[in-house]
Amino acid sequence: MNIDIGNALLDDATPGLRTDRLETLDEQVADAHERIADGRARDEFGYAALNLPETTDPDGIREACGDFEDSEAVLTVGIGGSALGAATITEAIGDGTAHYVLDNVDPAQTESVLAALDFTETAVHVVSRSGTTAETLSNFLLVREAMADDGVDWTERTIVTTGDSGPLRSLAETHNLPVLEVPAGVPGRFSALSTVGLVPAVITGCDIEALLAGGKSGAESLSPSLFDCPAYAYGAVAYALDQQGAGANVMMPYAEGLEAFAEWFAQLWAESLGKAGMGQTPVRALGATDQHSQLQLYRAGPRDKMVTLLRPARREPLTIPETDIEALEYLGGTDLGEVLDAEFEATEASLAEAGCPNVRIEFDRLDAHSLGRLLYDMEAACILAGELYGVDTFTQPAVEWGKRAARGLLGAKETEEAQAVTNKRTRRIE
Amino acid sequence: MNIDIGNALLDDATPGLRTDRLETLDEQVADAHERIADGRARDEFGYAALNLPETTDPDGIREACGDFEDSEAVLTVGIGGSALGAATITEAIGDGTAHYVLDNVDPAQTESVLAALDFTETAVHVVSRSGTTAETLSNFLLVREAMADDGVDWTERTIVTTGDSGPLRSLAETHNLPVLEVPAGVPGRFSALSTVGLVPAVITGCDIEALLAGGKSGAESLSPSLFDCPAYAYGAVAYALDQQGAGANVMMPYAEGLEAFAEWFAQLWAESLGKAGMGQTPVRALGATDQHSQLQLYRAGPRDKMVTLLRPARREPLTIPETDIEALEYLGGTDLGEVLDAEFEATEASLAEAGCPNVRIEFDRLDAHSLGRLLYDMEAACILAGELYGVDTFTQPAVEWGKRAARGLLGAKETEEAQAVTNKRTRRIE
Repeated sequence: MNIDIGNALLDDATPGLRTDRLETLDEQVADAHERIADGRARDEFGYAALNLPETTDPDGIREACGDFEDSEAVLTVGIGGSALGAATITEAIGDGTAHYVLDNVDPAQTESVLAALDFTETAVHVVSRSGTTAETLSNFLLVREAMADDGVDWTERTIVTTGDSGPLRSLAETHNLPVLEVPAGVPGRFSALSTVGLVPAVITGCDIEALLAGGKSGAESLSPSLFDCPAYAYGAVAYALDQQGAGANVMMPYAEGLEAFAEWFAQLWAESLGKAGMGQTPVRALGATDQHSQLQLYRAGPRDKMVTLLRPARREPLTIPETDIEALEYLGGTDLGEVLDAEFEATEASLAEAGCPNVRIEFDRLDAHSLGRLLYDMEAACILAGELYGVDTFTQPAVEWGKRAARGLLGAKETEEAQAVTNKRTRRIE
Repeated sequence: MNIDIGNALLDDATPGLRTDRLETLDEQVADAHERIADGRARDEFGYAALNLPETTDPDGIREACGDFEDSEAVLTVGIGGSALGAATITEAIGDGTAHYVLDNVDPAQTESVLAALDFTETAVHVVSRSGTTAETLSNFLLVREAMADDGVDWTERTIVTTGDSGPLRSLAETHNLPVLEVPAGVPGRFSALSTVGLVPAVITGCDIEALLAGGKSGAESLSPSLFDCPAYAYGAVAYALDQQGAGANVMMPYAEGLEAFAEWFAQLWAESLGKAGMGQTPVRALGATDQHSQLQLYRAGPRDKMVTLLRPARREPLTIPETDIEALEYLGGTDLGEVLDAEFEATEASLAEAGCPNVRIEFDRLDAHSLGRLLYDMEAACILAGELYGVDTFTQPAVEWGKRAARGLLGAKETEEAQAVTNKRTRRIE
């Protein structure tokens, strides 16, 4: 993986980094790296995520998946970090085995997923660290019912990934289910390269050893200078541009297989860095599609954003047929990937020309090794940025208020937050 | 449809609208409404979009779709506004008939869509106003080839929607294809309720007459005061909050079927209003899923955003089974939709409590009439906002530079923009 920050250094970019700013930033990176290396060495909460390529046991995961490796489909029941990493991996490099995800509590969606599945051929992966996540457990109860309706013994088709105690752990032990542990020191959004992300990966035929090897190459690339470390260069540049006004960070992969990756990144960035009045707003986009949707704003709108452009250096060949339609003759015989790459470069230059800072991330090709490296490097970039902001990267305290309110509304227990909900100020226009 | 702006008026919201600001805003709305009504009366470019519920001919669309109504799948070949409206409609209210979309030039994606389709049972809808859009025509040439490989006569399975001249128009006439007209005065992002959006809608069993009737009810609701018109209230509040610092607008439907709608909205908002250094950055989110991803940032991050929360008042029932798992007993017997609604209200209150302005949009249920109304009202809101910003809502000049660069890179003709691409400043970190 490499990163090109040339278009964030433009003299006329707004915001843009001057060369002397890079030098002072590099000193901050050296300090932050020391803190990160220390956290990794002690396997501290959160920093432990950067040790996953070493600590994750692929053999144990393959063993738990056992007979499920031949399933026709896998269903992940989980939400947020319990689902996004897995979805990112299977979408990008899965072998085509269907991966369904129940990561919401929309009755129409749950019903349509349950109706689509043949449970006799489906592996169900239920993921919740606490074993009590309301959305996940609601769906899981419905899944069990649907399996019973199909005459399938749910205990035969379910893998559990959870913490070392809680209702899901007890359930797994009672029914002797294959059970894996959510690594203790790793927040959900950093768990893609653990049991959480790798179970569906195994079932959809991904090379999880190569994913972890890619992660390892990221770990080996961490160094005290941003000039030698793509991950830190990304985190530092994003942070510095934000300080100068780039409050939004558009993540725009030029590869359909990375659409879920952009979502994964959005969670990583928002939930880790959105604290104490700080944090970039991650904006998901997809090249070239969103050139016809968002580019007008990026180029001509407020100077409050940076754009991250991402692509593989190599793609599968697919030649556009020759045509006798005159206006289209120039396309005939061209590789479709060349069209996409021309759009990529045109967009990048178009942003630069307008003074909108942008960063290019490239990797060899969209395979397990590159993806493992990409996920690892973005996590390292995020942790580095968290050090520079001075926030607690690994917690998400602001989510708790809403959780208590929802639990109160659902009658789990009385909460004052639920009371606050009923005091809503209303001004309705019909 | 109704809109509740109570949580944008909070005294302690940042930014937040004071009651006296609403009054002056209402005067601006009255002027803007006059301009809009005038534009509609003259069927002026862009404003004509608000006349579509009257001017679109559903019978003509049904006739063009003819035998294709029974197809097992429909493939849209188009990009940006030529695809997003259609995808929004079929995802939200389609009958389950598969709707594939080729709206990118990623070889892996195009290949996988072509491999998945049985062309003997698929209707192909190719959409490009000019008939020369490089991405769309590249894909269409590949689709024709794949049909030939499958022994399918492409002229038997293709519907064309295009302008009144150009290569696609000629092709349709030469081969006597069913051909529909992209309405002349309507930019792509405003064309969901025209031929562009409604062909796939017909083939996937949508009630397009009810969609248009919903649009009509939106048209009838337009009035000179934001206090009487939900669409204008939304556009005016979003504009005013942006003026006070809400540079991002998070569109967060609590309905999986509206995931594509959030994308459609993002194009509408970004491409229409992103001009002259102004325009909110639309951010797509999905409730309740993204509470576990983005909410930390919205609640604790910078005060530079507003959140739009959207939901149907009624959902399909789906009861969570009773359970003897102690920690989950409170969920048993609850309707899954109640869980989602509790999350909705908890998030809304959580944002308000933290001083993050938010707006609630509600409609009866996710059906054709409500969706038509929703699409229409968002378009009217956008046009109203454009009047308040004083921008040219209906053009997208900033996209042109990149298009010329791409065409130059692909050898269609020499362009100076293509030359600029090769002068890129590079600072690569590996």
